Amino acid sequence: MIDVALFGAGRIGSIHAGNGARQPGVRLHYVVDVDATAAQALARQHGAQVADAERAFGDPAIAAVVIASSTDTHADLILRAAKAKKAIFCEKPVDLSLERARVCAEAVRAAGVPCMIGFQRRYDPTFASLKARIDDGEIGEPEMLVVTSRDPGAPPVDYIRRSGGIFKDMLIHDFDIFRWILADEAVSVYATGSCLTDPAIEGAGDIDATAVTIRTRRGRLAQINTIRRAAYGYDQRFEVIGAKGMLQAGNHRPTEVVLWSSGAITADKPEHFFLERYRAAYAAEMGHFFDVLGGRAKPRTSIDDGVAALALAEAATTSWREKRVIEL
Amino acid sequence: MIDVALFGAGRIGSIHAGNGARQPGVRLHYVVDVDATAAQALARQHGAQVADAERAFGDPAIAAVVIASSTDTHADLILRAAKAKKAIFCEKPVDLSLERARVCAEAVRAAGVPCMIGFQRRYDPTFASLKARIDDGEIGEPEMLVVTSRDPGAPPVDYIRRSGGIFKDMLIHDFDIFRWILADEAVSVYATGSCLTDPAIEGAGDIDATAVTIRTRRGRLAQINTIRRAAYGYDQRFEVIGAKGMLQAGNHRPTEVVLWSSGAITADKPEHFFLERYRAAYAAEMGHFFDVLGGRAKPRTSIDDGVAALALAEAATTSWREKRVIEL
Amino acid sequence: MIDVALFGAGRIGSIHAGNGARQPGVRLHYVVDVDATAAQALARQHGAQVADAERAFGDPAIAAVVIASSTDTHADLILRAAKAKKAIFCEKPVDLSLERARVCAEAVRAAGVPCMIGFQRRYDPTFASLKARIDDGEIGEPEMLVVTSRDPGAPPVDYIRRSGGIFKDMLIHDFDIFRWILADEAVSVYATGSCLTDPAIEGAGDIDATAVTIRTRRGRLAQINTIRRAAYGYDQRFEVIGAKGMLQAGNHRPTEVVLWSSGAITADKPEHFFLERYRAAYAAEMGHFFDVLGGRAKPRTSIDDGVAALALAEAATTSWREKRVIEL
Amino acid sequence: MIDVALFGAGRIGSIHAGNGARQPGVRLHYVVDVDATAAQALARQHGAQVADAERAFGDPAIAAVVIASSTDTHADLILRAAKAKKAIFCEKPVDLSLERARVCAEAVRAAGVPCMIGFQRRYDPTFASLKARIDDGEIGEPEMLVVTSRDPGAPPVDYIRRSGGIFKDMLIHDFDIFRWILADEAVSVYATGSCLTDPAIEGAGDIDATAVTIRTRRGRLAQINTIRRAAYGYDQRFEVIGAKGMLQAGNHRPTEVVLWSSGAITADKPEHFFLERYRAAYAAEMGHFFDVLGGRAKPRTSIDDGVAALALAEAATTSWREKRVIEL
Repeated sequence: MIDVALFGAGRIGSIHAGNGARQPGVRLHYVVDVDATAAQALARQHGAQVADAERAFGDPAIAAVVIASSTDTHADLILRAAKAKKAIFCEKPVDLSLERARVCAEAVRAAGVPCMIGFQRRYDPTFASLKARIDDGEIGEPEMLVVTSRDPGAPPVDYIRRSGGIFKDMLIHDFDIFRWILADEAVSVYATGSCLTDPAIEGAGDIDATAVTIRTRRGRLAQINTIRRAAYGYDQRFEVIGAKGMLQAGNHRPTEVVLWSSGAITADKPEHFFLERYRAAYAAEMGHFFDVLGGRAKPRTSIDDGVAALALAEAATTSWREKRVIEL
Repeated sequence: MIDVALFGAGRIGSIHAGNGARQPGVRLHYVVDVDATAAQALARQHGAQVADAERAFGDPAIAAVVIASSTDTHADLILRAAKAKKAIFCEKPVDLSLERARVCAEAVRAAGVPCMIGFQRRYDPTFASLKARIDDGEIGEPEMLVVTSRDPGAPPVDYIRRSGGIFKDMLIHDFDIFRWILADEAVSVYATGSCLTDPAIEGAGDIDATAVTIRTRRGRLAQINTIRRAAYGYDQRFEVIGAKGMLQAGNHRPTEVVLWSSGAITADKPEHFFLERYRAAYAAEMGHFFDVLGGRAKPRTSIDDGVAALALAEAATTSWREKRVIEL
Repeated sequence: MIDVALFGAGRIGSIHAGNGARQPGVRLHYVVDVDATAAQALARQHGAQVADAERAFGDPAIAAVVIASSTDTHADLILRAAKAKKAIFCEKPVDLSLERARVCAEAVRAAGVPCMIGFQRRYDPTFASLKARIDDGEIGEPEMLVVTSRDPGAPPVDYIRRSGGIFKDMLIHDFDIFRWILADEAVSVYATGSCLTDPAIEGAGDIDATAVTIRTRRGRLAQINTIRRAAYGYDQRFEVIGAKGMLQAGNHRPTEVVLWSSGAITADKPEHFFLERYRAAYAAEMGHFFDVLGGRAKPRTSIDDGVAALALAEAATTSWREKRVIEL
Repeated sequence: MIDVALFGAGRIGSIHAGNGARQPGVRLHYVVDVDATAAQALARQHGAQVADAERAFGDPAIAAVVIASSTDTHADLILRAAKAKKAIFCEKPVDLSLERARVCAEAVRAAGVPCMIGFQRRYDPTFASLKARIDDGEIGEPEMLVVTSRDPGAPPVDYIRRSGGIFKDMLIHDFDIFRWILADEAVSVYATGSCLTDPAIEGAGDIDATAVTIRTRRGRLAQINTIRRAAYGYDQRFEVIGAKGMLQAGNHRPTEVVLWSSGAITADKPEHFFLERYRAAYAAEMGHFFDVLGGRAKPRTSIDDGVAALALAEAATTSWREKRVIEL
């Protein structure tokens, strides 16, 4: 039996708790959250106990921690977990500071514990299938990547203010997709953007629409386009071109109903947002984490992926602010 | 807490057990199966006990039975369950004999217990959404229905021999779809068919491809086309035309990956077979059953739907055998 | 130079005139129509002369006739053209009377002239490509056919009264598709139908929606569903299943624009009606006719196809009227 | 009657000749080409005469010239046509030198003659419909544009050497699309690229894959991704996002046949290349040119559009070569 401590009893914490509970041989032992009511409710649902961090880290029965608390707590919890030799699953990003994220990676490496960062998209059935087909050589070496990543609506400005900016908050996923799909590292990053939807976002020193271009060591090209508010919903597509063809990952829709009316032919919008779109991905991700802990799988990602995506986000932020190409 | 006895520990029994286990306030109490090993395994998985039918029916703690055993046992179990005043969920068909099915319906009515028949397609997200949109008036009154219902492969001839024939075994679902979508009753049925795939099926007195036409009281038309072996997989589509438009229900695919190669543009085949295609439907169906028992929902179907679909299957069988239109 | 006489200067006559004019070595010589103004206008446009039938048939320079006049004139014009040894292109149907159509076929055979009937769908790029792929063995022997054939609106009741009924007027195309795609002959036909859209059609002794089932000598099955008024437009699809797969022919759309709005994803309706949908088919059909006359191609159809489709239409009409299966 | 002189009897010249011939009141008078055989053949086909440039420009009967000769002749022919007060249709690009193109524009303006540049994509049914729907306000103000523009194969290196580079030769169309769709002007351009397909292209000082980002005065963003050789064919898509939704322009396919096989569901590749994809666009473009000359339409484009697209191509070339963002 693997006993787990969960940090963060919010929306994403609940999802991880539920998915963890479905893994054979896994037991949620502690729930830690500054919001005692939320911690209590989630703990009760899973037969777990409410605890503070000290107790959770101090209990030798705890083999793994799942960190789903607010971003500003990630680094500290990773460091404490590494010190206590717990296996770590941590939501993205590792930290808003690249330097601090590197310190965490160093600590994890020194402790020799597994540490997965929550890039759940890698576990999405469509994306994972596409990646496997690249690896099978269906399109030859991947040469170009175009990522479309659009949210159905911007978060509150308060959230944006603490988010580290759109590149660290939203595009961090797309930077991970880039590294995963092209299996190559960036040599230059160019980012530009605009505030198209809400002047308050500009007031908070951020933007809500970006256009990013990355060039890799082997001369491959990636373009990412994002927007915080796509009127038509959550749009998560990418396409990869190789010498032998192209693979596209399309949106998922809630149903396959099509209406043919006197005006047009209409299909469902994509799944509402990330909780719906990546439901299966979140489950598979947690399954993989515990498969790794149970010795049934080798870890497919590490904290280094979290650091690398953050480095790209930082480069993009600088590129946007200074209106120039950043060489890495 | 609702205590449940499950009859049948096979493939579909396991699915119902798993889905039942996910309902709050529901406990699998007994598993009944002639195959003791299967019963044991499933019981252990859910913390239930193995029992025989007598014990299950005799235990007043049992509020509901789920019947997923072989077709020839359905009627007897329904009658016993009705007598014991248990709520009933029974897989389709009620029985291969229409007369016997009517006896069951009478007993259920007399006992005043809920009795749902396993037409899981009504709970499929795509089909249920389409039905709701008809009810919302999106296409006006439904006037024509075209059902495409094709299996990826024929079952073994042994199974076919005991199946009651393709109309009672396979098209029973399509007859239920017809009644549910057009919300009208048949006045005439015409069925023809052929044995296209395996001469052994013809040897067993059955066919593997059918074309059925139904006319309703209000002059609406339905066409159903089926085949036991579609080389490209499990194909479950239908379309409904009304004065204001058409609604189509399409297949679900495992992923949304599309390959653009030098030869063509290729997408995934549909979900493999009914267990994959109707996974969500099976879960929603069991959820509805227990919502009804818990007083949170009114039953959307009854054993009468099972009897009515069977009556259509019987008419279609006669039409095919006697090469004539059957007036009902 | 092939000199041509055109009978009928209406909508479809104009199209044939335009398409004929594009063939190298073809000259429209005479236009014959009871409506002198229409004849004059079309003749002027193509540098042709207005003539009466006698003059057109009597002129030995005329090698071919294109008959696009009203249905009740077809048989007479075919007989006169055959007698005058002119090559014949005639719009469908040959005649409303099967017997009279057979007399025409006999006369054509005796005269030894080519006679193509206007089943333009065979020349549609999508349908012709599908047929070629069947012939290439992509799906093995075709076993089942499902034809969807829906019009955007019913013609005036006056037209319907003289049309010979929906089976001879509208489904004659679908019967030809059936014979062409399955390459087999019917042994039984069952047709039913309803008047769903306009009581005046019922008043004229006709219906506006049909469901037809055909069984062939080799046990193949075809289902055809039609409606005179599909609110969403002109819907022309079919699918063919063989042991190795299925081929589908889909609708053509005016543009490939897709709108993703806050409500749904919407695409264009299909091409408006047959003149738009089959524009390329009409051109290819006329090209084929003159290729045959020029010795560059062998005729792909003959008047016998027109007779055979009419025989199916007559059987379907009887089936619908007498509510029984017709054995052929 | 509008008499026309055509310069260039090659592939694109033939297309313009054919499309011009279909316009009422238009007559091809002269064909001018250094290749006398080609000129002769095309002239004969259209009942025109072969001439040299002097004769064509000197003949006062000539009202319009269509310039479809090699790029290095465009500027000179435009200048001579302007001087002779002929209306001008000229293939893209105006010239490889931006300065020289501006001289042409000045001359055209001074002469007061219409001068359309061959951006045929604006006349494509799909693209034109999309643009009209933007203008109708369907998505609100357009804010982001993503253009996918991929060729099925690279031209010979000899061609590439004289082409002015990928930005002037291939992306010039995409730069025009950008200006037309966003209806805004660029303030910054960033371009990068690689030689992914054929080292000989690199040897010729060019690249075959590009990623371009443009920012406009009003803060709108455009991304263009191109490749000279997409294994799967000619890929011409774009999408535009506004506050109210997104409009997508998709590829056109030769047929609407879909194969469902044991492996996958496969559809046709897009139309082969620009001659097939933009067949209707070329016809509509020539129609518009002569509608303008006939006073039936106002010119929708001018030589200034040709100059502006060229300016973007030049900025992109510099950006790529100097690895920096170009401010305009």
